[in-house]
Amino acid sequence: MSRDQPHQPEIALVGGMILTHPGVSEPVGHGMTTMAAGRLLQVNAPSQAIVPSSTVIDCTGCLIMPGLINCHTHAAMSLLRGVADDLPLDRWLGDYIFPAEARHAGPDFVYLGTMISAVEMALGGITTFADGYFFMEKAAEAAIRVGLRSVIAQGVLDLPVPDAAPGEWKNRAREFFDACPGDATVTPALFCHSPYLCSPETLRDASRLARDHGASLFCHVAETEREVEDVRGLYGRTPVAHLHELHILGPSFVAVHAVHVSPEEMETIADSGTKVVHCPESNMKLASGAAAVAELVGMGVTVGLGTDGPASNNNLDLFEEMRSASLLAKLVSRNPEALDARTVLRMATGDAAKVLGMEDRIGSLEAGKLADAIVIDLGRPHLTPMYDVASHLVYAARASDVRDVFVNGRPVVVNGRIITVDWDRVRAEARSVAADIARNLGVNLYGA
Amino acid sequence: MSRDQPHQPEIALVGGMILTHPGVSEPVGHGMTTMAAGRLLQVNAPSQAIVPSSTVIDCTGCLIMPGLINCHTHAAMSLLRGVADDLPLDRWLGDYIFPAEARHAGPDFVYLGTMISAVEMALGGITTFADGYFFMEKAAEAAIRVGLRSVIAQGVLDLPVPDAAPGEWKNRAREFFDACPGDATVTPALFCHSPYLCSPETLRDASRLARDHGASLFCHVAETEREVEDVRGLYGRTPVAHLHELHILGPSFVAVHAVHVSPEEMETIADSGTKVVHCPESNMKLASGAAAVAELVGMGVTVGLGTDGPASNNNLDLFEEMRSASLLAKLVSRNPEALDARTVLRMATGDAAKVLGMEDRIGSLEAGKLADAIVIDLGRPHLTPMYDVASHLVYAARASDVRDVFVNGRPVVVNGRIITVDWDRVRAEARSVAADIARNLGVNLYGA
Repeated sequence: MSRDQPHQPEIALVGGMILTHPGVSEPVGHGMTTMAAGRLLQVNAPSQAIVPSSTVIDCTGCLIMPGLINCHTHAAMSLLRGVADDLPLDRWLGDYIFPAEARHAGPDFVYLGTMISAVEMALGGITTFADGYFFMEKAAEAAIRVGLRSVIAQGVLDLPVPDAAPGEWKNRAREFFDACPGDATVTPALFCHSPYLCSPETLRDASRLARDHGASLFCHVAETEREVEDVRGLYGRTPVAHLHELHILGPSFVAVHAVHVSPEEMETIADSGTKVVHCPESNMKLASGAAAVAELVGMGVTVGLGTDGPASNNNLDLFEEMRSASLLAKLVSRNPEALDARTVLRMATGDAAKVLGMEDRIGSLEAGKLADAIVIDLGRPHLTPMYDVASHLVYAARASDVRDVFVNGRPVVVNGRIITVDWDRVRAEARSVAADIARNLGVNLYGA
Repeated sequence: MSRDQPHQPEIALVGGMILTHPGVSEPVGHGMTTMAAGRLLQVNAPSQAIVPSSTVIDCTGCLIMPGLINCHTHAAMSLLRGVADDLPLDRWLGDYIFPAEARHAGPDFVYLGTMISAVEMALGGITTFADGYFFMEKAAEAAIRVGLRSVIAQGVLDLPVPDAAPGEWKNRAREFFDACPGDATVTPALFCHSPYLCSPETLRDASRLARDHGASLFCHVAETEREVEDVRGLYGRTPVAHLHELHILGPSFVAVHAVHVSPEEMETIADSGTKVVHCPESNMKLASGAAAVAELVGMGVTVGLGTDGPASNNNLDLFEEMRSASLLAKLVSRNPEALDARTVLRMATGDAAKVLGMEDRIGSLEAGKLADAIVIDLGRPHLTPMYDVASHLVYAARASDVRDVFVNGRPVVVNGRIITVDWDRVRAEARSVAADIARNLGVNLYGA
């Protein structure tokens, strides 16, 4: 039988255990799961029925689960990771990040930086990421090249940015929607930087433009106390109240961070169906604060996890982010029961899919859904013995426990190695671009 | 030349970069570092001088640095990892941990559980760990078997414990000092559980016994608010004031946690030369609180990092613990400059060595010091590009980036694999012991 018959099983995972709905169901023994033409054909079917022509992958000793979903990053910033740390936000941005972006963040930078991050994410079991930056058609190209599913949100600011003059964002955004590759793995979107760097008119126009394209609108909301004060100073309202007043909140609006929100604002978020992305490690590293995530989840708000960009985290590791989310919630609520393992597993899979409006396609393993699955090696010392799979996934597992990664039915990581790109070549290119950045910023560059 | 000539270089690391004093010096290009008879012979000598008979290990693209030092764990508890989580401390202990320990925590449990943890630690670049539990001569045996350096502290409590009847701790401790293997890699010590589970007399006697053996005395101090209240109720003083009054504080006393200490108590700790171990992830997971580590370090207190036991963390990953320490300090002090990358690197190496009273032997790479070194692969995507090595080690690196580990001049991990024990055999044994534990506690057991 030929490869292009859509219902021919091309890949069959066999054996081990399967966790089809992380945080909702418990893992069970696994027979066979097949994928073809980008979709899951059978999930945990009897393994006797393997079609002879399919590629059989032995998952003995492993757990098969849906790929993790990173709801927020700025992937291209891997090229600026570690360029400056341990600094107040204004010096970090003003002395390092903004100057470097103004000089270097062109289309090639976005393509290469996004590729580095996509490889890191793939190796760590992330099959879908939501990205916000500039020249986003290049980010989409990099995601396609590495083989990850992506929600690619073009940045919107009133300030001059690398890909648009002041006030020119709308042309840039339209151009992006036209130029964004029409690949099955790419979903275009918009990303308003924040209510303090986007005027009310810009926010409203971006919201309309996103709606016209059936796209999500992302926005950093109430990340810092300073931001809340600034928005209050400008508009006499908190960021959430301001967005509510502008009729922008709603099920396709994604509020990233939501650290400094009052109980009333949390109700507004809940009532409007607005989605929230929690980025605990970035919020800690930048000393922004701790979002009241356990409370938001308790009020029925759909919360997904995000790593934020590699320049403020500084890695794109959702296993670690799940752990940090739970630990941080326990600390600030003084309650060791807060944000338990199963809840954060949902925030990295099923609920994350809802945040991106893709719950009909990703976030769980079900026949007919898109074939985004990961295989985790359960035999490592830090996972031995194993009384509770959810506990181990959240409190003990590592990105490096991911053995295989499939996105859209295609193998991306096999036996812990990326197979879609030549990493040594990407690394050499990264070094050459980084040499320029280091020279211009007056920082060191290490590595061969 | 024969192997037993003590000054014959047996292993020569060649190429790459070397960071001899993490957090103090910066990395430089590396020529050759040699080890023999357990010690470093030459550190960053010219590589032309390789002695023909030595084993040459190419470190191109890697960083050589001192092994990490885990200042606090209860290694044997790997056999109880994940048995219960997301619970209040009293239910976690009363319903799961104490019953399981009472029934299972015999000498074989301690040997096997410590071995599992030692393998995990070795793979993650930890070359020395300080352990506190019961039947500690068995923990020492396991550490020797895996090839890690250890500070092995026999537990002291007034309650009945797995290895001693009430009031019998002193005989047990003396027996331990006699039975503890006299290996060059093992340093015996004592571990008083806490000022609320050890009477003033027990604390004083243990302190005296430790001093008689030239050993450190460890103690959990001010881990929870509840503990502070309990000690106040019993003795009318805070835990630190109580220990000070008993003349127990001092340079060979190690206060583990020190979460709930007032500014005055911090001064007492500083003035007495008392060492502190910070376990941020355990403190967060159990909702105990956040130690004021940046302040302690600022007052000149020597602070080391610890993972705490695998049942309350739930992994033994010092890379992650460094990151969590820095992020937590930034969050609670609302200062992104708090506990910078270089400070936490010291807390996991040179300062950790001081906490254990071993700074003349470990914690940095210097000719004549013990040969405990690790080799980190810098070529991974999450470390690319690299503008600042300290930043990457703390904010981006993973335990799985450790390629090779040498302890006392002996290779323990080579190319990411443990070479001193047969892991599959250890794992099979773990499963058999865990099956009993799971049955008795009424919990599940997963894995092949």
